[in-house]
Amino acid sequence: MTALKACKILITGANRGLGLEIVKQLSEDSCQKHIFATCRDPDGSKSEALRELAKKHPNVITIIRLDADDPCSVKESAKKVGSLVGKNGLNLLVNNAAIVANGTVQTSSVEDMKNTFNTNVIGPLLIIREYLPYLQIAAKASGTPGMSCNKAAFINISTIAGSMTRIPSIYNQFPTLPYAVSKAGFNMLTVLAAEEIKADEILCMALHPGWVKTELGGDDATLEPKESVEGMLRVIGSLTEKQHGRFLDYTGETVPW
Amino acid sequence: MTALKACKILITGANRGLGLEIVKQLSEDSCQKHIFATCRDPDGSKSEALRELAKKHPNVITIIRLDADDPCSVKESAKKVGSLVGKNGLNLLVNNAAIVANGTVQTSSVEDMKNTFNTNVIGPLLIIREYLPYLQIAAKASGTPGMSCNKAAFINISTIAGSMTRIPSIYNQFPTLPYAVSKAGFNMLTVLAAEEIKADEILCMALHPGWVKTELGGDDATLEPKESVEGMLRVIGSLTEKQHGRFLDYTGETVPW
Repeated sequence: MTALKACKILITGANRGLGLEIVKQLSEDSCQKHIFATCRDPDGSKSEALRELAKKHPNVITIIRLDADDPCSVKESAKKVGSLVGKNGLNLLVNNAAIVANGTVQTSSVEDMKNTFNTNVIGPLLIIREYLPYLQIAAKASGTPGMSCNKAAFINISTIAGSMTRIPSIYNQFPTLPYAVSKAGFNMLTVLAAEEIKADEILCMALHPGWVKTELGGDDATLEPKESVEGMLRVIGSLTEKQHGRFLDYTGETVPW
Repeated sequence: MTALKACKILITGANRGLGLEIVKQLSEDSCQKHIFATCRDPDGSKSEALRELAKKHPNVITIIRLDADDPCSVKESAKKVGSLVGKNGLNLLVNNAAIVANGTVQTSSVEDMKNTFNTNVIGPLLIIREYLPYLQIAAKASGTPGMSCNKAAFINISTIAGSMTRIPSIYNQFPTLPYAVSKAGFNMLTVLAAEEIKADEILCMALHPGWVKTELGGDDATLEPKESVEGMLRVIGSLTEKQHGRFLDYTGETVPW
């Protein structure tokens, strides 16, 4: 189903919504791989579905605690994953964990502005920083030129709500100022990280999953998680250095910044 | 020199750099106007030049304390300015106050990420929110259709470092990740505020001042503050609803997001 063959993959926010669906689809395909599924609270009730899935695929899925809001937790998780990936490093890291907060210029709280920025921007910054050594190992170990997600890549799950060009047409329906501002910052982080790691031949790009029926997307959304993730994995599997630093959606179309 | 005739104008971060130069040029032109020049610490040593300028133009410049990091200070300043502007409201608010922090994915501190976001994004959000009633008064009082800075406008001083399209070509020379991320968020705030206030016919747009020899821009910059501000005031004076929600530079050219 997917062209993705990456051996060692990490997905953040893997206990629900799109993160869980990504782990599910990857663990069910026939390519041999190992998935590090991270979440804030692996033992909590919100991680039950992930624990069930890991039980079904005990040799494929390892659940790791990672709270993007806590720099110590990011560091600890990286150390643990680093000790588990071995000499070929980590091939693919999907920065999927994110929180949403609604609000307008009139109603957005300072707390929501800070929380969304912490989780959706500072968290991924620290994650990219701490995990980079393992992706550098993977890039070197691959022995192939160019960029791909089978070699070494950061995929940052973004949203058209973070697109200055697209947001005006959806803002009335989705007044999510704190979220949109944080995702614009996240897109900038993607561009800058891409710039910094291009010499390492590590791919980095932003991916919009579509409007998906998840806790975050709500019931009115147009896409089932299955369809969105099938599309994203198809895009992820097809990426080369041509899409480095770019912003695409789950169908492979370019999203304007 | 400038086509700007706005009667009541507020400029944040007015004690140095571009903010001070804006106050200077506006206070020296022949149009009758009143300028509220805000800064964190009106009595401090860093505000001496502004105090001198206000002494030269006592009927034109009023210095107001406004610390963008402190919601109470924003509220208090708005209350004070509101009591001073009278029945025609505030015509033009220039969100100029900003801080810079350097860093890369490897070196940016969490503290710098938070501080730049607080001052450069949350500050302007609160400022727009608290001052909006006075711009709504000005928009209604003007009696003219359409948008202009002489009627009612928020001008957000941004930077090409906040442009996802432009930053890759300058990032090696200016590794200012915390600043760039905050300015991308600030650009999103500009787009969303523009969307929210368009029915009020209040203009809102982002303006890149060029690379200017200020404390923030450094000595290698290519522009003197005088030249940058002359350009920006020319652009500001010429804006209509066509530039609402847009991103221009000090020459009037569109900057891609």
